[in-house]
Amino acid sequence: MNTSISSDSNGYFTADRSADVVNARMGKAINPRLAALMRSVVEHLHTFAWDVGLTQEEWEVAIKFLTEVGQMSSPERQEFILLSDTLGLSMLVDSINNRRPIGATETTVFGPFHVEGAPILDMGANICLDGKGERCLFEGRVLDMDGSPVAGAYLDVWSDNADGYYDVQQPGIQPKWNNRGVFVTGADGKYSFCGIRPIPYPIPQDGPVGQMLTALGRNPYRPAHMHFMIKAPGFQKLITHTFFSGDPYLESDTVFGVKKSLVAAIEPADGQGTWRSTFDFVLAPLV
Amino acid sequence: MNTSISSDSNGYFTADRSADVVNARMGKAINPRLAALMRSVVEHLHTFAWDVGLTQEEWEVAIKFLTEVGQMSSPERQEFILLSDTLGLSMLVDSINNRRPIGATETTVFGPFHVEGAPILDMGANICLDGKGERCLFEGRVLDMDGSPVAGAYLDVWSDNADGYYDVQQPGIQPKWNNRGVFVTGADGKYSFCGIRPIPYPIPQDGPVGQMLTALGRNPYRPAHMHFMIKAPGFQKLITHTFFSGDPYLESDTVFGVKKSLVAAIEPADGQGTWRSTFDFVLAPLV
Repeated sequence: MNTSISSDSNGYFTADRSADVVNARMGKAINPRLAALMRSVVEHLHTFAWDVGLTQEEWEVAIKFLTEVGQMSSPERQEFILLSDTLGLSMLVDSINNRRPIGATETTVFGPFHVEGAPILDMGANICLDGKGERCLFEGRVLDMDGSPVAGAYLDVWSDNADGYYDVQQPGIQPKWNNRGVFVTGADGKYSFCGIRPIPYPIPQDGPVGQMLTALGRNPYRPAHMHFMIKAPGFQKLITHTFFSGDPYLESDTVFGVKKSLVAAIEPADGQGTWRSTFDFVLAPLV
Repeated sequence: MNTSISSDSNGYFTADRSADVVNARMGKAINPRLAALMRSVVEHLHTFAWDVGLTQEEWEVAIKFLTEVGQMSSPERQEFILLSDTLGLSMLVDSINNRRPIGATETTVFGPFHVEGAPILDMGANICLDGKGERCLFEGRVLDMDGSPVAGAYLDVWSDNADGYYDVQQPGIQPKWNNRGVFVTGADGKYSFCGIRPIPYPIPQDGPVGQMLTALGRNPYRPAHMHFMIKAPGFQKLITHTFFSGDPYLESDTVFGVKKSLVAAIEPADGQGTWRSTFDFVLAPLV
């Protein structure tokens, strides 16, 4: 006959209350925010396993996949961020933490390619230093919620080159600060600069996230976009992109960065191959 | 004025239906089981972020933690399995996939220390080869659901030594097959062997999972246990442990392996320091 000890306490595992058993194990004196986060993690993790009836083999595949994601990561490559991006989590976290009043320009993901310290240029200056790509004028205004121009706004802009790479991805191949610059608005709130029409590019596909996208029948592309980080005194910092109407990947951005309001007009500027993309940014006041 | 293109389709990101946007992106022709699993992963991930209001900084900590878990892993050390174990997921997956009729002995986690090919020994033989530890007799029967003895059952048993390590963790220090053996029941279904009284041991604490346990105010210990893998023709394979009544970690096993029914009696056998632990195993028939 088996002998089991009896107890009124709840430290023993039972499948039907497994998340509670795990969460009850946390110490009483720990950081309350950490406790709340872990409680939710454990509940979702266990509910997931129950809901789908996770098999031992599927669990093994998941362990192997997550391990490979970690091992693919290096100072130059963050595969877990890529995983977060391609599962839409990065965009959701961006949205949760950057709510804007209706009418203000929406945010999107920062991305890994911003570089601090780009040169401050005169309005209208050219940021394309490698001579590649289709010339494109970027024009518009920085406004407040009332539609009045914002003076002294810093627009930090960056994009890929015509081969689909940022300068920092190709040191020694692209000139430093290629397709990057900072512009400061005057009293009219207007900005303008000359760059290239950015091109869609795939995220790195040689790791486990690329394999996941293939298994899920998803494309690895981001639609073409120009990055903007806009700072002005008295206003919330705005990190966003503009996209371009007609881009084939607008509704299949592999990192889900496209909000409809961020799709800018783009049209021929001069009949000689130069494009013009116009977009007005509306900044939300500091709260 | 901003210009946005209008569309009836749903590929654009919006925070309030973010999981749906992500899941709608999956191809139509993919493996349906994979699709169901990913749908649930994405829904839980997004609901979690919403529920807790995940901040950008918390997201960064999570990315860093998961990356470190991956990078701590090697052929000798699987930190993601340790994470799954310490979050109770491994036990839940074990339970989901190894349901047993009431009355049959319950399963628990296999653990990483089983070695195939341990020597087959005569009943009563000693498996402790390093001379360390408190001597303990393990005795009992292998029964079917009707309480009849099961003949020809193979009991593959293994435990740590008196220092809290399995032989495979200390090659060259412990003798090969120390505290391991296989026993085969006769017509009476009885088993008996001599080993040591196993001791509680901590899981590896020098990685991110150890840091997590510290932050959560949890102990890293497993209660003492003897591993059993029992196979008999016509019965479901049983992978389980026996624990020992009175162990201080029964209700705080860091991997949640203890089910109440698996706690065996342990008592002095001879007044000279030898222990006796008795447990009967009840096998479920093949279905």
